This record gives sequence, structure tokens and C-alpha cells, in this order.
Amino acid sequence: MQEFAELASQLADAAGEIVKKYYRQPFDIEQKGDASPVTIADRAVEQCLRDLLETKRPDDGILGEEFGTKPSKNGLSWVIDPIDGTKSFMIGRPTFGTLIALCENDTPKIGVIDQAISGERWIGISGQATTMNGKHVKSRPCSSLSDAIICSTTPSMFDGMPAYYERFHEGKMGHGLIWGGDCYMYGLLASGHLDMTIEANLSPYDFAALIPVVEGAGGLICDYNGAPVTLNSDGCIIALGDPGLKVAVLNKLKD
Amino acid sequence: MQEFAELASQLADAAGEIVKKYYRQPFDIEQKGDASPVTIADRAVEQCLRDLLETKRPDDGILGEEFGTKPSKNGLSWVIDPIDGTKSFMIGRPTFGTLIALCENDTPKIGVIDQAISGERWIGISGQATTMNGKHVKSRPCSSLSDAIICSTTPSMFDGMPAYYERFHEGKMGHGLIWGGDCYMYGLLASGHLDMTIEANLSPYDFAALIPVVEGAGGLICDYNGAPVTLNSDGCIIALGDPGLKVAVLNKLKD
Repeated sequence: MQEFAELASQLADAAGEIVKKYYRQPFDIEQKGDASPVTIADRAVEQCLRDLLETKRPDDGILGEEFGTKPSKNGLSWVIDPIDGTKSFMIGRPTFGTLIALCENDTPKIGVIDQAISGERWIGISGQATTMNGKHVKSRPCSSLSDAIICSTTPSMFDGMPAYYERFHEGKMGHGLIWGGDCYMYGLLASGHLDMTIEANLSPYDFAALIPVVEGAGGLICDYNGAPVTLNSDGCIIALGDPGLKVAVLNKLKD
Repeated sequence: MQEFAELASQLADAAGEIVKKYYRQPFDIEQKGDASPVTIADRAVEQCLRDLLETKRPDDGILGEEFGTKPSKNGLSWVIDPIDGTKSFMIGRPTFGTLIALCENDTPKIGVIDQAISGERWIGISGQATTMNGKHVKSRPCSSLSDAIICSTTPSMFDGMPAYYERFHEGKMGHGLIWGGDCYMYGLLASGHLDMTIEANLSPYDFAALIPVVEGAGGLICDYNGAPVTLNSDGCIIALGDPGLKVAVLNKLKD
């Protein structure tokens, strides 16, 4: 796996160069079918990573946000979100990130969360301790859901099912969840700065890379039924810094 | 005013040293009456700035988030939010900031938004061009509300009046506002990266510093009735990068 992790890191280096070039520069914004903004940078990053993978790993599959799916010939697939958190990228807020995962069949084995502006890179490898800029990180213990600091990206991702996040408005924060998360919050969870995230309607390229990062830090990612998350999951996911909270969270979701 | 702006910058330097010391360190969190988290850092910063002001400007008033009001003997008052965006600070997200304003009676004349981790400092001085790290910045034109990129901090600040932000869910973003703003988004607006903010129930120390920063960049801050914002305002405020949007926004608020 180490060889693949090094390749993932090279991909993140290449992505970061492009991201830094376009960050906070004026540019046109297109509207996609789902109305999320797509920047020139988004496409440029994915094309660059696809080109590199075509050269170095021609038999591996690729699933990217912008340019669809290339089937795998060997069971390995790279799952790429060139800029996760495009809204944050658009407003010049460095909480977006490039997400790169390597999956064996449907299971993420390596994940990279790269924030090119702050220069923070989390790397998770199945069965190994997660690192941030080369140093081991650990998620933190949290003995009770009422003590948990809980984050998400935006209420609008829970379209038609706001009750799922509203159940978590009580607890430590009093005034509800902390919003504006993007992938960066999963890095912060892995590093022990927050306790839980809850998100909905994510796509595989949004969540694949997060799983090895969070789990290698001692945390847990599951769906709203408590099942492990694979590329086939429905995109409604919970991340916990302390896996001991899982039962309480699942009970709260059933309330 | 230049002399005061230099003092404000010295205060921000001192605050930043303390902020950096506590950032991402484990520490105890108290609960205030309004349930927002107050960190040791929050209090340490405000105490430090108060001590500096007592020495250098003993007759000036001080209004701070943590330690209340010292009356002014000369009509000048410093308005301080040691860490605006304490929730972001708690989770280790560098979108919080130290806010320092100098007011003449009830009107902010100087404002500083300082983000110590990213090393970004916006300084606004009444009647002068706003700077970010010494360079002039300008807010950007936006010809139509439907093209505006609109940000806020959290839906929960609109407690009991969600309609105020829900009116702005349409438009460019399709999926609604961009959340998780804190004071940093006013710096980003001043630098031309977003078009509008809408917030509610802010306190004077939350908004005083923002006014000279936004207005010196060519933008506008007003309340929901379109009136200029002073220390006596009700804390429901709109910021616009392009003042030409004001009529459209006020009409939308009356819808």
C-alpha cells in the first residue's frame, strides 16, 4: 500500500499546484445540473490527475466528479474529487480540499485530504495510523453525545429530511451544529478537534477518501443504519471521533 | 486617524500571539449564559488588549465581549471581540478572527479584522481605502441579486425569524447560502470574493470593526431597514460588496 500512498501524494502535489494558481483569482463559474458551481480549476485538476494516472496506472479505474468513470481492469479504482467544497473555494475560504482515494473493488483503502492553501495533508491507509503532514494524528474520546461538538456543511444538503440534523441541535453547542465544514472537517475530526459530523446526499467521490483518514485516526464512518460505508453507500454518513458514540447516535437517528 | 490605526494594529499583533498559542491546543471550555463557548484564549486576549489600552489610552472607553464596558472620558471607545467565531476557533478552523474597532461616540471610525493563523489582516479607516496586509482591496460589482454569492454564519442566529435568510436561498447558489462565515467572510467580501452577507442578532463587538473595513473597500453595511449601522443598531445587518444592490435587498426583505 505504501507505493500507492506515495502516488496518491504525488497526485495531491500536482492538484495543489493548480489549486493555488486559481485560488482567489477572478474566473467564470458554470452552473452544473445540480446547481453546484464548477470552476475551471475543478476541471483542470481532475484532468491533470487523470492524465497522470493514465500514464502511471493505465489498468486502474478512475471515478471523478467532473469526467465520469473509467472502468478498472484489475479491481483497483481511484476516486477523485478535484475540489471538494467548491463554494468555499469560490469565496476564497481555505476549507475546501482535494480528495483522492484508492479503492479495492468498492472499499476505500487509501484516502488523501489535501488543503493546498494551508498546506495540510491528511493521509489514511487501511490498517495504518493516519498522518497529517507526516505526523500521526488521533481522533479524541467523547464519552457522551451531549458533550459532542458536531459539524456539517450546509442544511440544504438535507433537502427534504432536515430532521436528521435537527436531532443533533441539542448538546454541547446549545445553538446547534457548526456549519461550513466541507472535507476539511474530517481532517479536523481525525486530528481530534471535533467529535462528529453528519452529512447527507454525498457522492462516492465526496466520501471515499474520508474513510481511511478517519478510521486510521481511531474514528468511525458509517451510514445512518450503522453499516460500513463503501462506494455503493447512499451518501448519508456519520463520522465519529470516538466509535463508542455509535449506538447513541443510531438511537438518536431513530427517535 | 493613522496613529490610532497603528495602535489598533499593535493590539492585533498582541492578540495574534495569544491566539496562536492556544489554537488547536486542548483546553477547557466554559459555557456562557448564551451557550456560546468561551475559551481561555478569548479572555486572555481581551485582558491583554485592555491592559495595553489602559496604559496607552487611559481616557478612552472600552467595550469588550468578555469584560463589559469601561466608559469613555473623551468620546472615543475601543470595541473588541477577542475571538469572533469561537466555534470555528474551537474546532481548529481558521475562519475566526480578532475584531478591534475605534468608535467616535457611536460610530466606528477604524476597524481591524485579524486572522492570526493565516496571517491576514484587513484594516479599514473611515474615509480611506481598506487594506489587507498593506495592500488596497476593493469589493466587487454585482449587478443583480440573482447573481450574488451570499454568505452567513449559521441558521441558528436567525432564531425565530428564519424567513430573513430563506428569502435569499434562490439566486446564483441554487442551494442557498454559504454557511460558516464568521468575521472572515467580511474580509473576503472587502477583497471582492463574495457579494453579500446577511446576519442577525449580532452584538456591537461583533459588527463594529466590520463597518470601516467593508465601507473603505467600496461596500456598504446597513440594517434590515437600510439604515447605517452604529453601536446602537439592533444587530441585524446586511453587508454588500456593491452598494447598488441595496434597494433590491431591502425590497426582498419586505417581501
